[in-house]
Amino acid sequence: MSDLRKRIRVAVIGGNKPGPQALEQAAEVGELLAKSGAILVCGGLGGVMEAAAKGGRACGGLTVGILPGTLTADANPFIDIPIATGIGYARNAMVVINADVVIAIDGEYGTLSEIAYGQIYGKKVIGLGTWEVKGVQAAKDPEEAVRLALGK
Amino acid sequence: MSDLRKRIRVAVIGGNKPGPQALEQAAEVGELLAKSGAILVCGGLGGVMEAAAKGGRACGGLTVGILPGTLTADANPFIDIPIATGIGYARNAMVVINADVVIAIDGEYGTLSEIAYGQIYGKKVIGLGTWEVKGVQAAKDPEEAVRLALGK
Amino acid sequence: MSDLRKRIRVAVIGGNKPGPQALEQAAEVGELLAKSGAILVCGGLGGVMEAAAKGGRACGGLTVGILPGTLTADANPFIDIPIATGIGYARNAMVVINADVVIAIDGEYGTLSEIAYGQIYGKKVIGLGTWEVKGVQAAKDPEEAVRLALGK
Amino acid sequence: MSDLRKRIRVAVIGGNKPGPQALEQAAEVGELLAKSGAILVCGGLGGVMEAAAKGGRACGGLTVGILPGTLTADANPFIDIPIATGIGYARNAMVVINADVVIAIDGEYGTLSEIAYGQIYGKKVIGLGTWEVKGVQAAKDPEEAVRLALGK
Repeated sequence: MSDLRKRIRVAVIGGNKPGPQALEQAAEVGELLAKSGAILVCGGLGGVMEAAAKGGRACGGLTVGILPGTLTADANPFIDIPIATGIGYARNAMVVINADVVIAIDGEYGTLSEIAYGQIYGKKVIGLGTWEVKGVQAAKDPEEAVRLALGK
Repeated sequence: MSDLRKRIRVAVIGGNKPGPQALEQAAEVGELLAKSGAILVCGGLGGVMEAAAKGGRACGGLTVGILPGTLTADANPFIDIPIATGIGYARNAMVVINADVVIAIDGEYGTLSEIAYGQIYGKKVIGLGTWEVKGVQAAKDPEEAVRLALGK
Repeated sequence: MSDLRKRIRVAVIGGNKPGPQALEQAAEVGELLAKSGAILVCGGLGGVMEAAAKGGRACGGLTVGILPGTLTADANPFIDIPIATGIGYARNAMVVINADVVIAIDGEYGTLSEIAYGQIYGKKVIGLGTWEVKGVQAAKDPEEAVRLALGK
Repeated sequence: MSDLRKRIRVAVIGGNKPGPQALEQAAEVGELLAKSGAILVCGGLGGVMEAAAKGGRACGGLTVGILPGTLTADANPFIDIPIATGIGYARNAMVVINADVVIAIDGEYGTLSEIAYGQIYGKKVIGLGTWEVKGVQAAKDPEEAVRLALGK
C-alpha cells in the first residue's frame, strides 16, 4: 500500500464566485491541509476550488479535481490529478465520496448539494461561512476548520 | 409529439421514513397532480415517494420512478415506469432534471440534495414541511403546493 | 402493480446515422414490438432510435428515450417518456439496464458499448446487421429479431 | 501547471480474471509505462488492472484507479489514487476519458465496452490479445503496445 493511500483526503467545497474573504479562507485551508500531509480533493474548477488548490500546491500538497465535464484540461492549473467524470453536477456526489472529511467554504446551491451528500455518506462536514445545515460543525476560521477536519 | 410529452412533469421528493402527516400530504399531492393531468416523477422507493405514487395511481395518474440501483423491480408497486440508473445517490440530480417543477415534502439529506439540484437547474421548488432553503416557496398544505407547482 | 409494469421492455439500439435499410428495419421492429404490447426503450435521439420509436408510436406502442443530456426536449418527437440523464455516453449502460432484452440494429461504437453492457448485465441481445460479438444472436430480419426477443 | 499535469496518462484495461499470459503482459506494460513517466489509469480492481498497477508501482510509477463503487478502499493495494465513482459499470466511460491513450489486454465484455468508449471519445486504442474491433491497433507484445501508445 503506497504512502499516498495512507494520507487523509479532505474535500474543500465552495462556490465558483466567492467574495474575497472566502477566497482567502480557501487558500489558507489549502495551505494548512498541505502542511499536514492531507490530499486535497475538490471540484477542480474556479473560485474556492482554485484558491484552495493554489494554496495547497504552494505548500507542496497533492491536489485532486473531480470535474463535471469530459475534459481533464478543464481543471484549474493548480490541480495535479484532474478526474473528468462527464456526468455534470451529479459529480457533486463523487467529490464527497472521495474524501474522508469535508470542509465547506461559502458556496451556493452546488455546495449545498455537496453538504447534503456529505451527510448522506456519513462524512464529517466542517463549515466556514457556509450554509447552516444541521450536522455541519461551524468553524470560526481556517485554522479551526482544518483542526476539526483532521480530528486534532 | 404525443399527448404524454405535452403534460407537465412534477417531481415529488421526500424521505424514505416520513411521519404520518408527511405521508398523508404526499398522498394528497399525488392525487391532486393526477387529477390535473400532471405526470408524477419521484425516486421510486418508499416513504413519501411511495405515498405520492399510490395517491397518483389511485386517481389515474402516470408515475415515473428514477431509482438508484440497477433493477427496475426495486420500484414501489405504484410506479408505472421505473427507470433504473445504477448510479446511486447521484441519481438525485436526475430526479430533478426530469421534472418541470419540484414539490419537497418533509425529507432528510437526500431531499436536501434534490432541493439544491432544483435550484442549480433553475426549477421552481415548492416546500411542504421540508428544509427551509432560500429560493424554496413554502406552501401551507398539499392543495397550495400543487396550485403553486402548476402555476395556477 | 400497474399493467405497464407487467409489459416486457425491449431496448432497440443502433446508430444516429444508419443507412436506409437499417432505418426500415428499425421501423418494422418498432411496429412489431408495439403490436405485441412491449414497451420500447431507446437512447431517445435520431437514426435507429427515432425510426424505431416512430414505428412503435404508429402502432400504439409506448416509447421511452434515455437521453445523454439534461434536457428532455432533446428527445425525438416519437418518444412518449423522455428521461434526461445528464451523464453523457455513460447513459449507454442505462439504456440496457432498463430493458429485459436488447435488439441491436446496425450501429457504430455507441451501439457496441451497449451490446457489451447487454452482456455485462446478462440480457439477451439480438443482432440485426450489427457488430458480430460472441453472445449476440443474429436475426435475419425484423420479424425474427422480435420473435427471438420475445422468446416466441 | 504541475509536472503531473504534463505527463501522458495511459489507461490499461482488461478483465478481472485473465489467464497467466495476460497477467504477465499487464505487469510488463505497467513497468514500461512507469519507466517512461506515464501515469497509469485503470479500473482499480483485480486481474489485469492489479497486475498493471503492481508493475507500475514497482518501477516508481503513479497509478490511478477509477472504481465502480463508493469506497476507495475497494482499490487494489497498488493504486496510489483511488477514485470512487458510485456509478457502477457506467464508470467504464470514465476510465477512458481520463486517459490520452488506451491499451487493452485480454478482457471480457467490460473491456469491450471500454474499447468502444475509446473509439467514441476519439482515443487511440492499442490491443494486446483482446477483442478484434475495427480501429484497434494490434500490438504483438507489451513493448510494442507501449511504444505505439506513447507514439514513439
